[in-house]
Amino acid sequence: MNGEILSTGDEVCSGAINDTNAAHIASGLKDIGVRVTRHGCVGDDMKDLVAVLSEIGERSDIAIVTGGLGPTVDDLTAEAAAKAGGIGCALDESALTNIRHFFDKFSRKMAPSDIKQAMLPVGAIPIYNPAGTAPGFIQTIGRCRCYFLPGVPGEMEKMFAASVLPDIASLLRKGRVVTCQRQLSVFGLPEARVNDRLAGFSERFPSIKLGMLARFPVITVKLTGFCPLNSREDSMECDIQKAAVQNEIDRAGDWAAERLGDHVFDRDGRSMEAVVGDLLVKQSATLAVAESCTGGLVSHLLTNVAGSSGYFLFSGVTYANQAKMDVLGVSKETLDTVGAVHEETVVQMAEGVRRLSGADWGLATSGIAGPSGGTSDKPVGTVCIGVASEKGSRAFRFYSPFNERLLNKQIFAIWALDTLRKMLIKEMII
Amino acid sequence: MNGEILSTGDEVCSGAINDTNAAHIASGLKDIGVRVTRHGCVGDDMKDLVAVLSEIGERSDIAIVTGGLGPTVDDLTAEAAAKAGGIGCALDESALTNIRHFFDKFSRKMAPSDIKQAMLPVGAIPIYNPAGTAPGFIQTIGRCRCYFLPGVPGEMEKMFAASVLPDIASLLRKGRVVTCQRQLSVFGLPEARVNDRLAGFSERFPSIKLGMLARFPVITVKLTGFCPLNSREDSMECDIQKAAVQNEIDRAGDWAAERLGDHVFDRDGRSMEAVVGDLLVKQSATLAVAESCTGGLVSHLLTNVAGSSGYFLFSGVTYANQAKMDVLGVSKETLDTVGAVHEETVVQMAEGVRRLSGADWGLATSGIAGPSGGTSDKPVGTVCIGVASEKGSRAFRFYSPFNERLLNKQIFAIWALDTLRKMLIKEMII
Repeated sequence: MNGEILSTGDEVCSGAINDTNAAHIASGLKDIGVRVTRHGCVGDDMKDLVAVLSEIGERSDIAIVTGGLGPTVDDLTAEAAAKAGGIGCALDESALTNIRHFFDKFSRKMAPSDIKQAMLPVGAIPIYNPAGTAPGFIQTIGRCRCYFLPGVPGEMEKMFAASVLPDIASLLRKGRVVTCQRQLSVFGLPEARVNDRLAGFSERFPSIKLGMLARFPVITVKLTGFCPLNSREDSMECDIQKAAVQNEIDRAGDWAAERLGDHVFDRDGRSMEAVVGDLLVKQSATLAVAESCTGGLVSHLLTNVAGSSGYFLFSGVTYANQAKMDVLGVSKETLDTVGAVHEETVVQMAEGVRRLSGADWGLATSGIAGPSGGTSDKPVGTVCIGVASEKGSRAFRFYSPFNERLLNKQIFAIWALDTLRKMLIKEMII
Repeated sequence: MNGEILSTGDEVCSGAINDTNAAHIASGLKDIGVRVTRHGCVGDDMKDLVAVLSEIGERSDIAIVTGGLGPTVDDLTAEAAAKAGGIGCALDESALTNIRHFFDKFSRKMAPSDIKQAMLPVGAIPIYNPAGTAPGFIQTIGRCRCYFLPGVPGEMEKMFAASVLPDIASLLRKGRVVTCQRQLSVFGLPEARVNDRLAGFSERFPSIKLGMLARFPVITVKLTGFCPLNSREDSMECDIQKAAVQNEIDRAGDWAAERLGDHVFDRDGRSMEAVVGDLLVKQSATLAVAESCTGGLVSHLLTNVAGSSGYFLFSGVTYANQAKMDVLGVSKETLDTVGAVHEETVVQMAEGVRRLSGADWGLATSGIAGPSGGTSDKPVGTVCIGVASEKGSRAFRFYSPFNERLLNKQIFAIWALDTLRKMLIKEMII
């Protein structure tokens, strides 16, 4: 079974927005074994939309189409789908009910343009939208079963997971592919170096596909195994095959982790902040952070993890030097002699925030994210990181090769969390 | 002139990563008047790559191809381009020099796989990469002038701006299109409501294209004007045409801003944090922030703006209630009676952080981002915002309709900055 993805909308085609929908959908389809053969985009033009949908109807088994279901004049998808299918649109009562329900929930009045969203191609099956007004719908065009979803990622992703993937999975009876995956979270190596270290992988593990996903500054190494099923999902033969694939993936994961050494910080693909949070929970320890150059990013990352209020107490973003002194008790003498970006300073910051908050651990950052502020001693990209605990304090200095503010904030933040992670692990071993 | 964009790489095709490159390139091409007719993707497969490049060579004037220029076994683009052009690859000396230069800069040793990146199709023109090792190159395939760039966004974007766009612009002699654009930054209205308020725009301003870019929770309304040029860039006829288009865009911008009212917070498309920063600079005022639910995001946004150290002093991310008391002086009685999420509490937080830091303005957030923590009185999505200045303090309460932690953090942070923005503007009027 092959699938296509079509993103509609002028903003997507012209590049005004990034199309995260296609990536999300492709990933989901791949996981259930649908071969994604094409994804493209088309603008808000009736003629083009009808043409592309008709082409899709002739060449693919399934298609996921996003966008164009809203209430505005640019929203042409339902009408275009009807035209491509050679039929008309009609008011769908259950779709109208869903829209009404959404408006009642937020005590908002329906406007005429909102009712337009309940006009679906005749015979189309509505897909309930739990997070917005535009219902999606399923319609066959040519030989292709087409799923139409809103373009708003938050709405699309929910509907894709709850309604579309299960529907497609139920279509897959014969020749299904089981995919198992393991993910290694890697920090501190660029992609080329990860690749060099994993040279020889495909010869050793020919049935496992190696992939790399780089989300600066972390790389996720993905190991995926497949086994075609000619039997039903719940038979014993299937279980044996799945177990064999899983076993091979585990061996491949161990081999890769050994080659990547200390740069692997998690064997389940988790984020650095989730791993740090988990270590703090295991040790029933609390954390406070003192940030300068990272400007709040370290605490923002930590607090993105659900349950972080169980260990994260406080962050002092002491952007100004006066704040470092007044809030954290960093000494004026230190700032005057060695400056804000120095090992002595971050030790005082980490100890100060620990004292102030009563936390078990204190973590501090101070550096130069750029683009301005660098000197020959301390160029843009210099960062000092301090960690304090009841056992004492340590400081570290790193140099990022980048000149961009946001890239440096990101790498400083992950360096800081990684430094804390290593010290938390040492603590568990002792 | 038409252009195509091709993104290469298994991760892009399978959806493992989001393809921001295509969007960026499409936007740049559109701005110089190239009609982007197609963008698609292809995986790391030599046969597919050669086939797609050959097809492009037959149907388009220019093409921008990203990815596959790295040192790994998956990087096939240079070889595929050569095959599609019916030629071979050879070591390009200037490309090799660029790579060596990069390694010297970071005191890193070149490995054999890095030299692979200097193997380009015979006759290709290398494109210098200032931020990485992989050089790009220009090569004609069929009738198409193809620009090959790295997939890493940071590298690609620099090379696209510095080398590719100017090269394409120089190709455009006849029939060039001048584009002028105005952007309105809008907050507090969903897309459907913005659309309703701007109903009638295309009838009033038929030559101006209206677009909307939604980057939650801010919407950027884009007004673009075009005028075809049959004369040379520097002639007076051209200047007159440009002025007429600019004038019409200004009129359209004023009309749209009037219809959107207070929801327009900037007429130059700037971010909320940049607008707030600019107001603080104009008033020579300083700011400190006290964050609870936003977890550091407000200060992270503020410190993304270059020059923010000129007005941003400190943020206290008092995630734990004890920290609210110990660091900001919030009273225990207040927390025990009305709780952390209350107008009284955020007033004390804002006043406390102002006192602590000596800032002119204090801004505080306290709310429930979710998914847990809501009650019937204060459901998930409730946020209180406090603002303190020498003239006194004010508090506000808002309700977000979302259940997702990150969405709520984002909308809370922009609500807080917007609240401050409005009070800063009042200050200027007085």
